[in-house]
Amino acid sequence: MDRGALGEGKMLQGSLDSSGPRFTPLVVVELASDTKEEAIAWILSRIRDQQQNGGAELLVEQLGPGVGAQEKENPNMFLVGATRQRLLSGAEEVGLFKECNDGSMRGFTCANKHNFKDFEGDGDSFLNMAECQYIIKHELDTLRAKDETHVPGHTQVKLYPGKSIIRRLQSKGILIQIFPLHGQEELKRLSFSWYKKVKLSFQPLDNIRHYYGEGQALYFGFLEYFTFALVPMALIGVPYYLFDWEDYDKYVIFAVFNLVWCTVILELWKRFSASLAYRWGTLSRKKAFEEPRPGFHGTLGFNPVTGRKEPLYPNAKRQLRVYLVSLPFVLLCLYLSLYIMMIYFQMEGWVLSFHDEEPTFWTGILMFIPSIIYAVVIEIMNLIYRYAAEFLTEWENHRLESSYQNHLVLKVLVFNFFNCFASLFYIAFVMQDMVLLRQSLATLLITSQILNQFMEAFLPYWLQRRRNKKMIRKVQKRRTVEEKELPLAEQVRLEADMSTYLVGTQGLDSDLDKNFAIMIFGFTNLVNTQEEIMFPSVWLCPCFILSQGTFDDYLELFLLFGYVSLFSCTYPLAAVLVVLNNVTEVYSDAFKMCRVFKRPFSDPAANIGVWQLAFEAMSVIAIVTNCALIGMSPQVKAYFTESETQLILWTVAIEHMLLAFKFILTFLIPDVPKHIQIKLARLEFESLEALKKKKMLEASDLSKTME
Amino acid sequence: MDRGALGEGKMLQGSLDSSGPRFTPLVVVELASDTKEEAIAWILSRIRDQQQNGGAELLVEQLGPGVGAQEKENPNMFLVGATRQRLLSGAEEVGLFKECNDGSMRGFTCANKHNFKDFEGDGDSFLNMAECQYIIKHELDTLRAKDETHVPGHTQVKLYPGKSIIRRLQSKGILIQIFPLHGQEELKRLSFSWYKKVKLSFQPLDNIRHYYGEGQALYFGFLEYFTFALVPMALIGVPYYLFDWEDYDKYVIFAVFNLVWCTVILELWKRFSASLAYRWGTLSRKKAFEEPRPGFHGTLGFNPVTGRKEPLYPNAKRQLRVYLVSLPFVLLCLYLSLYIMMIYFQMEGWVLSFHDEEPTFWTGILMFIPSIIYAVVIEIMNLIYRYAAEFLTEWENHRLESSYQNHLVLKVLVFNFFNCFASLFYIAFVMQDMVLLRQSLATLLITSQILNQFMEAFLPYWLQRRRNKKMIRKVQKRRTVEEKELPLAEQVRLEADMSTYLVGTQGLDSDLDKNFAIMIFGFTNLVNTQEEIMFPSVWLCPCFILSQGTFDDYLELFLLFGYVSLFSCTYPLAAVLVVLNNVTEVYSDAFKMCRVFKRPFSDPAANIGVWQLAFEAMSVIAIVTNCALIGMSPQVKAYFTESETQLILWTVAIEHMLLAFKFILTFLIPDVPKHIQIKLARLEFESLEALKKKKMLEASDLSKTME
Repeated sequence: MDRGALGEGKMLQGSLDSSGPRFTPLVVVELASDTKEEAIAWILSRIRDQQQNGGAELLVEQLGPGVGAQEKENPNMFLVGATRQRLLSGAEEVGLFKECNDGSMRGFTCANKHNFKDFEGDGDSFLNMAECQYIIKHELDTLRAKDETHVPGHTQVKLYPGKSIIRRLQSKGILIQIFPLHGQEELKRLSFSWYKKVKLSFQPLDNIRHYYGEGQALYFGFLEYFTFALVPMALIGVPYYLFDWEDYDKYVIFAVFNLVWCTVILELWKRFSASLAYRWGTLSRKKAFEEPRPGFHGTLGFNPVTGRKEPLYPNAKRQLRVYLVSLPFVLLCLYLSLYIMMIYFQMEGWVLSFHDEEPTFWTGILMFIPSIIYAVVIEIMNLIYRYAAEFLTEWENHRLESSYQNHLVLKVLVFNFFNCFASLFYIAFVMQDMVLLRQSLATLLITSQILNQFMEAFLPYWLQRRRNKKMIRKVQKRRTVEEKELPLAEQVRLEADMSTYLVGTQGLDSDLDKNFAIMIFGFTNLVNTQEEIMFPSVWLCPCFILSQGTFDDYLELFLLFGYVSLFSCTYPLAAVLVVLNNVTEVYSDAFKMCRVFKRPFSDPAANIGVWQLAFEAMSVIAIVTNCALIGMSPQVKAYFTESETQLILWTVAIEHMLLAFKFILTFLIPDVPKHIQIKLARLEFESLEALKKKKMLEASDLSKTME
Repeated sequence: MDRGALGEGKMLQGSLDSSGPRFTPLVVVELASDTKEEAIAWILSRIRDQQQNGGAELLVEQLGPGVGAQEKENPNMFLVGATRQRLLSGAEEVGLFKECNDGSMRGFTCANKHNFKDFEGDGDSFLNMAECQYIIKHELDTLRAKDETHVPGHTQVKLYPGKSIIRRLQSKGILIQIFPLHGQEELKRLSFSWYKKVKLSFQPLDNIRHYYGEGQALYFGFLEYFTFALVPMALIGVPYYLFDWEDYDKYVIFAVFNLVWCTVILELWKRFSASLAYRWGTLSRKKAFEEPRPGFHGTLGFNPVTGRKEPLYPNAKRQLRVYLVSLPFVLLCLYLSLYIMMIYFQMEGWVLSFHDEEPTFWTGILMFIPSIIYAVVIEIMNLIYRYAAEFLTEWENHRLESSYQNHLVLKVLVFNFFNCFASLFYIAFVMQDMVLLRQSLATLLITSQILNQFMEAFLPYWLQRRRNKKMIRKVQKRRTVEEKELPLAEQVRLEADMSTYLVGTQGLDSDLDKNFAIMIFGFTNLVNTQEEIMFPSVWLCPCFILSQGTFDDYLELFLLFGYVSLFSCTYPLAAVLVVLNNVTEVYSDAFKMCRVFKRPFSDPAANIGVWQLAFEAMSVIAIVTNCALIGMSPQVKAYFTESETQLILWTVAIEHMLLAFKFILTFLIPDVPKHIQIKLARLEFESLEALKKKKMLEASDLSKTME
């Protein structure tokens, strides 16, 4: 009886192709191989059960054995799908926005389904695969325990009414992973239009959104926007660089340009992003009620908002952890970073004296060595700090994913900013050595770009290729398949072994312990723990590529933006380098999304979130820095020969005016373009009118019955 | 037949008391005395008509003739009321929030009326008078033309389907005014608990809100909060002033205190104001859809949002008016203000040289004369500018009241700030004369306070007293009434003649033309145009009190806040003076609200709106100013004897850190207290759950019918 559900699944499989279920598989759920059978049966029955009975009403089947079934393959992999009707009602539940026949974006409802633009016939192609997968993820996430006190067969995995089953299984290690499947056909088409063709064109943002969801598409949109925004700066930079190479002092115009540029592009991005989000239907979509994150723990109590039973953790305790442990730790790290910076300057001085004593070509090369070493050390420190920050933020035990994210981003940004830019600030404002500033900036920029490209694109590609070949070889050993496509079972297992790309607000912590261990011991299998062969390449790549996600991608852009907006006036080629980097970044990111990582669940983001804030903070710092650089320039100093005080006072006054102007500009430029504002207002007006009409009808009904 | 509706009203009056209608009159509508009878009949029928037919379904009757009926009394005054049932359904329409039995605040619905705390029996006392009046105002405002092309009898007053009838009548001068009646009993009780008792206590904010609505109550709450916030500063100021009188240099501590104080109190006010707004049910109440303001004009077209016919005015034209006319005008005014400031400094220098030549007691007194003259001139300039700003903003032809308000507030604030503080900034940072700064600050503060108190409280009181006495004399001439209370007809006419107090987003423009004329010719009847006797006092008071409203009250507080936060470190008694001023301000404002002005319609405000922003901008300026004052102080200078550059750089660095800290603090302190956040989240959660349940039920119904 326990095996009933499973048996049924197997029987169905048997009646069809040996590896294909009778529905379109969308999401894969992998349970630990030592999960008790009664637990599996219970989980499957809950997933299959009708919604009235508190089930998810989804279709689920066990994945057939792969070619390596007799080996140590995990048998507990399940494919989840749903009927078309279920997906449509799910779309209504998650509040999906779709385009209507009149061109406006509205929340989808089954009752009005025929008013929507792409709804044809039964609506088979109405929802795209990413949306279906998002819906299934949501349905699984909101599958709640009824009166079970624990998972059958696992008495240590406690449950209480209302607890999300999937999250509990996840936090207790029974659920190893849950991920959406790639759509091979669509992926091929996407990758062709995205990075495989050579001709210069915009990225296919709508297709990216179609396949990966809004969060990913917004990242690529931002990357592209940022690149284009840099083009004028690069265009100005090249002749500047070519003709004024030795005249370090003519940077005032460039600094002024920088000032205006960094304010304007961020304001315009907000409007552009609002247009994209409106077109994709996420702009006015309501956020779902946020559940506690899987890692959150506490004593069981009642949530004051929902009234549900759930773990509670006193806020005061969390604050203590934040202010008494995390904050001192961050400050200590900043101090350490400063200390290392000082060592770098000592090295720099030592090399310089060496070069001055006996200048040869080799000592000239040697001049760059300290900067390169420092750049590498900075990258390594950023990485180590990143793990420490994740660990600490996890330990702070935030209830909501958003709160966790904010604390993590704040920690990481402060340190990375300090670590990357402290030396430049020191050179610019304490040493006031513009030649060294230029040299340092160039070395830092180029080194970190090379490191990043290598770690992000080349290495993962090489690893993935090895694995693919191995898998194909394995399959070919068994059967003599002519077609290049793998059978479903192999394909699923191949994807299950891919690295996870973390999108937006999805947990960053799931890989944390594994990665932390890897970082410390540095001698474990790199990309997946189920690979057999130990790569010798482990030594080369200190796990840079492990927990990648949008966070890392945005962080990289943030630092590049910093290099350009803060100091590029002293090194006009910076913008050119960043443009080049971004162009390759588009290709390498596209490649890694399509070929290296598991497909991520789509993230219905309406904007780039906390990163908008981070970039704006950077642009404020850029204004201050550029004003100071202008004030220090010889041309400006020439006007104030008699009094340095006057110079400083004027610089400060102008800087204050610019800051005030920036804030006024932020107020004046509306965040959402006018035509979208009108559309949003029209929707709101319509819903208000509908409500009024409904109430009026009810009132007249009431008065009629009273008569 | 035209007089049918009116005749009915008269008959009803006749059957009861000669001056009382058979319903509780709530709102008075005054039409021009030359309105055509068919127009009146049409308006009344539209107001009385059922909602299904597009009417307002309100009760309305003509006011009986007063004692001076044979004189030039306007007969077209109408009393409007409503049945209890109509008021309750109106409360639902306007989205009133009320306290439920479980202590939460929810939008009132007739269906759930018995879940609300104060709903007893038929709900007679559920809505207070201010709420009922607000509902009636809303219903009248949303009374729309059907297929009439013009108002019957007035072919020049064009109408089109969907146009608000009341607004059209108002803009064409047929509707003279519409105002809510005072509740004599409640007013007596309120004024007793508010300003008539001598013992020190908090203001009865809940009662004020009960009688005047949330906007007014928030103003008085802010006034009280601001006063209490000043107390610690005043307490520090007194000993400081007493013991360090001649030691102008010890102001560093005070400046540091100022810095922290102005940031903290604004943050805390936001939280306090959110608590008040939650308790009063305006925090989560949705804003109604904003209609074009009555003064807005343009060519008839279709509103892109509502699809209704309405006047449209090209935005580009408005922008041209703003940037090509208003902006240069404001700049010109600022220049003029600077020019006058320079004249003041010349006078000051002249008086000083006079005093130095031959110092006597009288020349000592003379020393204060320029400051006093300058203070008076500042007040007069502010006033003239105010009218010019209203005129210009009106001419800019903004579509929405909120947009009009923002432009007006911006214009007025910039000029007032400049006008009041430019001389102080000049003295502090250009002349660096702390003695003169102190003297100027004291004179400005004291003079403007005396002027304000006189204009705001004493004069209106005196005028109102005269009028009341006259009215009572008139009534007593006719009948030999023993009781002090006036009959309804007299009371209504008395209130109709009172000045109008403008609340929040209500139009400031209605009195504009009248006032502008008065300002220019200066020799017209002051308080109301229907008064017979020309006051000789006109010469004394250049119409300060005419268009008063919350705008003026907040503006006064804003300037006081400026005096205290910017420069009070040089004159520690400033805080004491402002506290004293505020205490009398509470009493005079309370008095003028209760006795001098018409009752205003309540304004369901959730916060102090644009003023919060204005005060925060001031606090940023205060940080910059205080840092500069600290940097200039001799104690600090003593640390940097060798290098002035170092001193300035340190000052600037610390100032930047403080500004950054202020912004971080603004992010860190949540605007809404935790316990209210939880309550709001609970409401949202419940509505989401209810929606989900409803959808689930519908789905199961559907599946049942399909089976």
